Amino acid sequence: MNFYFLTIFPEVINAYLEKGLIKKALDKGLIKAEVINIRDFAGNKHNRVDDYPFGGGPGMLMMPKPLADSIRSIPDWENKEIIYLTPTGKQFNQQEAKELNSINKDIIFICGNYEGIDQRIIDKFVTKQYCTGDYVLTGGELPALTVFDSVIRFIPEVLGNQESAESESFSDNLLEYPQYTRPRDFEGQLVPDVLISGHHQKIRDWQKEKSIEITQKNRPDLYEKFLKNQNK
Amino acid sequence: MNFYFLTIFPEVINAYLEKGLIKKALDKGLIKAEVINIRDFAGNKHNRVDDYPFGGGPGMLMMPKPLADSIRSIPDWENKEIIYLTPTGKQFNQQEAKELNSINKDIIFICGNYEGIDQRIIDKFVTKQYCTGDYVLTGGELPALTVFDSVIRFIPEVLGNQESAESESFSDNLLEYPQYTRPRDFEGQLVPDVLISGHHQKIRDWQKEKSIEITQKNRPDLYEKFLKNQNK
Repeated sequence: MNFYFLTIFPEVINAYLEKGLIKKALDKGLIKAEVINIRDFAGNKHNRVDDYPFGGGPGMLMMPKPLADSIRSIPDWENKEIIYLTPTGKQFNQQEAKELNSINKDIIFICGNYEGIDQRIIDKFVTKQYCTGDYVLTGGELPALTVFDSVIRFIPEVLGNQESAESESFSDNLLEYPQYTRPRDFEGQLVPDVLISGHHQKIRDWQKEKSIEITQKNRPDLYEKFLKNQNK
Repeated sequence: MNFYFLTIFPEVINAYLEKGLIKKALDKGLIKAEVINIRDFAGNKHNRVDDYPFGGGPGMLMMPKPLADSIRSIPDWENKEIIYLTPTGKQFNQQEAKELNSINKDIIFICGNYEGIDQRIIDKFVTKQYCTGDYVLTGGELPALTVFDSVIRFIPEVLGNQESAESESFSDNLLEYPQYTRPRDFEGQLVPDVLISGHHQKIRDWQKEKSIEITQKNRPDLYEKFLKNQNK
């Protein structure tokens, strides 16, 4: 899969592409990524890409033309998924990540800044709008990288361990159980005995029980879904 | 407010701290931020900070000691909020962001990587666990920056326009209305007449109507909350 990031902060995206597993995936050619600076398409001498919103209101909006031109600079853009990250979009989750990976289309991310982008870009170009959580950020870079990161985890070989992508939080509407590594005694806090028992079934039972406990406590919404599926 | 990021990918955090409004806030001294490399506290010659989980399972876990030592390297850490970003945490949202800003304590972010961190660090040090959305990522850097970004937007002067932080998506369980900037005619797509009418009440009415429409369509969960509040 190829990924394109349209942004006015290319350094933010570039730094993330240097991160551990991401860099390995790029180096191995498992994915490709290109960062496009929207300011290169500003078409004015101050490289301005924002303007006042019609109808008033605080803040500035990203103008349509530089965005349209940067999208059109991508070969075969008409056949790619064009994703705009916005609080008004559909809630992004693990299921959406898996689907984006399975449809296996290249993805263009539009990272808005200021108060957002001109609606006409959304109407004309955008194929999916996602919200990664119910909060407001200064720009779309973090949500774009969030979608990118969660999607590429499903590409075989990216994690080096396909099992990790499947056996995680959210896979059965359950959160993950507590985990422990060495040393067994850390400042007087011990690893639970069962985990050192070598008794695989007891370990799995303990982990399942803890998963259910933590889900019930922290995410009653997921716990309810889990119970519904149990009773099917 | 002071923010501390504990991470094995300091470059990712540093690049974000150079971003537009964030850099301005740091330069003006409205906030302070420090990035701490957990590997500096590895205490072994290969700077290893991960180990196998007890009880088996895929992937590696972050060891407790380097994390404990990096937390304790922060002066007065006992009086700071220590936030671990994890899919098993409480759902982070705009309300939580506002509260973190209003309690005005310094924040230490623990960015996990691999399969997560040893549970004993959570039990001993962590004061809040947040999940920024129902997806799994390769590390806690994006969620930590997400919490950071959404919190500092509430600090007066950071946006240069306090109105923006309040009149946004999620503030009344409504998503934001579509916005338009110049030109009025973009490739044949026109800005809606009402926005150019100069009639403030009509503009507000149109924006409210569109907000309700988009919320009902994209986020039935929020729309339901909105309706409940209307009927009070």
